[in-house]
Amino acid sequence: MQSNSAYDNLCERFKELDRINHAITYLNWDQMVMMPAQGSQSRSESIAELAGISHGKLTAPEVADWLAALDGVVLEGHQEFTASVREMKRVWSNANCLPAELVKEQIVAGSACEMGWRTQRRNNDWKGFVKNFKPVVELSRQEAQLRQSASSATTPYEAMLGLHCHGDTEAMIDSVFSQLRTVLPDLLQRVMDKQGSLSVSEKGQYPIDQQLQINKQMLDALGFDFTAGRLDQSMHPFSTGSAGDSRITTRYNEGAFLEALAGTAHEAGHASYEGSLPEQWRGLPIGESRNMCIHESQSLLFEKQVFYSKAFMGFMADKIHLSMPSAKHLGADELWALGTHVEPGKIRVEADEVTYPLHVMLRYEIESDLINGKIEVDDIPELWNEKMQALLGVDTKGDYTNGCMQDIHWTDGAFGYFPSYTIGAANAAQIFAKIKQDHPDWQEHLKTGDVQFIRNWLQEKIWSKGCAFQSQELMQSATAAGSSADALIEHLEARYIRSEY
Amino acid sequence: MQSNSAYDNLCERFKELDRINHAITYLNWDQMVMMPAQGSQSRSESIAELAGISHGKLTAPEVADWLAALDGVVLEGHQEFTASVREMKRVWSNANCLPAELVKEQIVAGSACEMGWRTQRRNNDWKGFVKNFKPVVELSRQEAQLRQSASSATTPYEAMLGLHCHGDTEAMIDSVFSQLRTVLPDLLQRVMDKQGSLSVSEKGQYPIDQQLQINKQMLDALGFDFTAGRLDQSMHPFSTGSAGDSRITTRYNEGAFLEALAGTAHEAGHASYEGSLPEQWRGLPIGESRNMCIHESQSLLFEKQVFYSKAFMGFMADKIHLSMPSAKHLGADELWALGTHVEPGKIRVEADEVTYPLHVMLRYEIESDLINGKIEVDDIPELWNEKMQALLGVDTKGDYTNGCMQDIHWTDGAFGYFPSYTIGAANAAQIFAKIKQDHPDWQEHLKTGDVQFIRNWLQEKIWSKGCAFQSQELMQSATAAGSSADALIEHLEARYIRSEY
Repeated sequence: MQSNSAYDNLCERFKELDRINHAITYLNWDQMVMMPAQGSQSRSESIAELAGISHGKLTAPEVADWLAALDGVVLEGHQEFTASVREMKRVWSNANCLPAELVKEQIVAGSACEMGWRTQRRNNDWKGFVKNFKPVVELSRQEAQLRQSASSATTPYEAMLGLHCHGDTEAMIDSVFSQLRTVLPDLLQRVMDKQGSLSVSEKGQYPIDQQLQINKQMLDALGFDFTAGRLDQSMHPFSTGSAGDSRITTRYNEGAFLEALAGTAHEAGHASYEGSLPEQWRGLPIGESRNMCIHESQSLLFEKQVFYSKAFMGFMADKIHLSMPSAKHLGADELWALGTHVEPGKIRVEADEVTYPLHVMLRYEIESDLINGKIEVDDIPELWNEKMQALLGVDTKGDYTNGCMQDIHWTDGAFGYFPSYTIGAANAAQIFAKIKQDHPDWQEHLKTGDVQFIRNWLQEKIWSKGCAFQSQELMQSATAAGSSADALIEHLEARYIRSEY
Repeated sequence: MQSNSAYDNLCERFKELDRINHAITYLNWDQMVMMPAQGSQSRSESIAELAGISHGKLTAPEVADWLAALDGVVLEGHQEFTASVREMKRVWSNANCLPAELVKEQIVAGSACEMGWRTQRRNNDWKGFVKNFKPVVELSRQEAQLRQSASSATTPYEAMLGLHCHGDTEAMIDSVFSQLRTVLPDLLQRVMDKQGSLSVSEKGQYPIDQQLQINKQMLDALGFDFTAGRLDQSMHPFSTGSAGDSRITTRYNEGAFLEALAGTAHEAGHASYEGSLPEQWRGLPIGESRNMCIHESQSLLFEKQVFYSKAFMGFMADKIHLSMPSAKHLGADELWALGTHVEPGKIRVEADEVTYPLHVMLRYEIESDLINGKIEVDDIPELWNEKMQALLGVDTKGDYTNGCMQDIHWTDGAFGYFPSYTIGAANAAQIFAKIKQDHPDWQEHLKTGDVQFIRNWLQEKIWSKGCAFQSQELMQSATAAGSSADALIEHLEARYIRSEY
C-alpha cells in the first residue's frame, strides 16, 4: 500500500469519526441541559447507536492496515506527519486494546454501581455499595493490565493514567505529590493561623436573572464569543462543544453568587482551549486538546489565577454592584476575602485552593494502590480516615457519605482521572508565572478586565499546538520546565501568606 | 432465505435507522433554536454524515434481498405484517429510486436557489430568481418521472405528491379543490358583506414573559406533557421530536399575542400526533405518522376547531386576563372577532381560514401543471396574477416579493407539499364534525378548557393507527367517508356566516 494514500485514508476516517462524535457531543449536551425526562430512553439508544458506529469505524480492519503501512515511514512535505500518526495510533490503540466482552461487562457493572451509589451515598451505606463496587474494581484491574500490555506504561495504574493524563508519568505525578505532601500541611497551618475568622458574609438575596447578566458580562471580558458559544444552566456545571460552538453551563444559587461566577470562569477556560484548537488539523487526533492535566490547567488558570486575583475581582466588583444592588455591601476587598478564605473540610468539591490538592492526593494514593493490587476495596474506609486526619486534620470516621463515598468518579471505573485536578493546578500556576514574567504589567490589565494578553499567550504556546507535542514537551516549550509543584507552592505563599494578589 | 428472518432483519435495520434519525432530528432542532451562528459549518457536516450513513444502510443490497424474500409472503402471528412490509417498501423505494448523481445535483441547485431567493425576494428580482429556479424545476421534473416509474402514480406530479401526501390521489385532491373553487369565492363575498369592519384592535403592549406563561398554560390544557416535551422560541415556528420528547417552537410579538397562541395550538396538534404514535411499532415505518394531509389535519384541528372556537376562546380569555393585564380590554367576544376576522390579502401565511384554501389552490394548479410539463417557469407570474385576481380579487401585478416569490417551498424543489395544507383543513373539519357528533356536549368541555375527549377520540381513531392503514382507509374508518370539502365548507358557513362557534 502507498503510505501517502494510507495517511489520506486515515485522515478521512478520523474526520468521519469527528463528524459522528460532533453529533454525540451535542446530543449529550441536550440531554443534560434541555431534554425532558421522558426523552431519556430514546436518547440513550441513539447515542449508543452512534457510539457503536463510531467504534466500528475506528476498529475496522482497514484502519489497522493503514496504520501498519505507516510504520517507520517519514512523509515529505508533512511536517506534522509523525506526531499526527502517533496520535492516531494512540486513539486507535485505546479503542482496540479491550475485548468487546470486557467493555460490555464494565458498562453493566459501572451503571449498576453508579445507580446504586446515588441512594447508598445518601444512606451512608458502605456495605451495600461495596457489593457493586468490587466487580467494578476487578474489571478495572483487568482493563489496566490490558492497557499496560498495549502500551509502555510501567504499572497498570499508569496505563489508566494514559487515558486522561497521557504523557504524564506516574513518576512525575508522584514527585509533584511528594513535594506537596512535604509543604502543604505546614502551609495550611500557617494560612489558618494568619487569616483569622471572616468578618463578612456572602449570604443574601441575589436574583438569578441578575447573576446571569453578570456571568455573561464576565464571559465577555474573558473573551468568550457568544456568536460561537452559549451559557446555560444545569445541575452539574460543565463545558463541552467544539470550535465555533462552545457550550458552558453554570448552576446558580439565589443565596450566593461567587461560586457560580468562579464556575463560569473555570468552564470559560475549558471552552477557550477547545474553541481555539488548530483549525488546520480539525477532525484529526493531532488537532485535539492535549490531556486533562493541560485542560484543567486552562480552566484553573481562568478561575484561580484570573478570577480570584485582587485585580480582576476589583473589575468584577463594579460589574456586580451595577447589575445587582443587593451585593453592594460587598466591596472588592470583601469579595476577595470571601473568595480566598481557607477552611479544611470533608468535601473535595467545596474545598478551597489550598486544601484541594490534599483531597486529590488522598484519592491518588488510594486509587493507584487499588489498581496496582496493593490494597483491596475493604481497606479504603480506614485508609481514607487516616489520610484525612493526617493531611487535613478532619475526622470522617463512620461518615461514608462525606468520606470515601462522596465522589462519582470511581463508581463507573474512572480511575486515573483525579490526579489531573492537581497536576492541572500545578501547570496553571507554572504557566501563569511565565505569563507574569512576560507581562510585568499584568495586574494593570486585569484591573480593567483585559485578559487578551493571556489569551494571546495561551493561543501561541498551548492552544495552537493541539497534540503536536507530548504534554511535558508542551510545558517545557511554554514555561522552560516540566511540570512541578514549585509554582503552585509559590502561588499559594504569595496569595495566602503574603496576600499579594 | 427464511421470510421470518428477513422480516426480523428488516425490523432491526429500520430501528437502527430510527436511532440515527433521532440524532438528526435533535441536531436540526438545536440548529434552529439553540446553536450559535458559528456552529453552522460543523453542524451541517455532521448532519450530512449521519444522513449519508442512514441512506447507505437503507439502500444497502441486503435490504433489497430481504424485501424480495418477503414478496407475496403472509406471516402467521403477525397481524400487521402486510402493512408493515408495505410501508418498509415505500420508504425503501422512495430512497432507492433516484440516482445519487441526481440527488447531489438537486442539493446543489436547491441550496443555490434558496440562498439567492433570500435576497432576490427582498429585491423583487424575478429575473435573477428565474436563473436559479429553472434548473431546480428541470431536476424536479426528472425526479418526478423517476418516481412515477417506480410507483403506481398516474402523473409525474402525483408521484411527487406521494412523498408528502402518500395515498391521496391527484384525482381526490382535484375533486376537493374543484368543490372549493365553486363554493369559496362566493362564500368569501358573503362573509365580507356580513362581517363589516372590526370595531376593536389587538394592538398593545404584551410582555413576552407573560405571553410565554399563557402559551404554557394553554399547552397544559391541550394535554401537552412538559415531562415529555419543551416549548421554545424560534424565527419560524415548528414542531419536531419523537414520543417522549416533543419540541415545539413559537415566535412572539410584543405588539400582539393571538398569532403566537394560535401557532402554539397548531404545533401542539402536530406534537400530539407524533408523541402518541403506537409504542409497539416504534422505529418501524408502520409506526410513523400517516402523511402530511393527516398531520396537518391534527394541527389545524387544534388550531382552527379548538383554539378559535367561541367556547375555548372564553376559557383562554380568563387565562389571558389573569396573566396579562394589558389585554383586559379584549373580552372573549372581541378575541373571537379578532381571531376570525376575514380579509383577502397577498400573503398565504397571513391568510385567514376562509381565504387560505384559495392561496393553496392557486399554488396547486401552478405546480401540478409545472411538474407535468403543461406550463413553463416563465408563465408563472402571469398565471399567479390572473388567479389571485380571479380567486381573491387581489392585485399582485409586478409585486413578485408578495406574489409568486413569497414562499420558500419551491426554491429547493419541494413540489407536492402545498395541497396538504388544504386537504389537512378538509380532514380536520371532517374529523371534528364526527367528534361533535360523538360528543354533543363538546362546547361544555371546551368552555372549561377540557380537550381530553378530543385526545381520546384521536388517540383511538388516528394516533394509535400509525401507518397500518392508507390515508383514505383511515379517514373512512374514522369518519365513515373519504376526504372531501363538505365538512370544511359546512364549518366555514357555521363559523363565518351563522357565527355559531
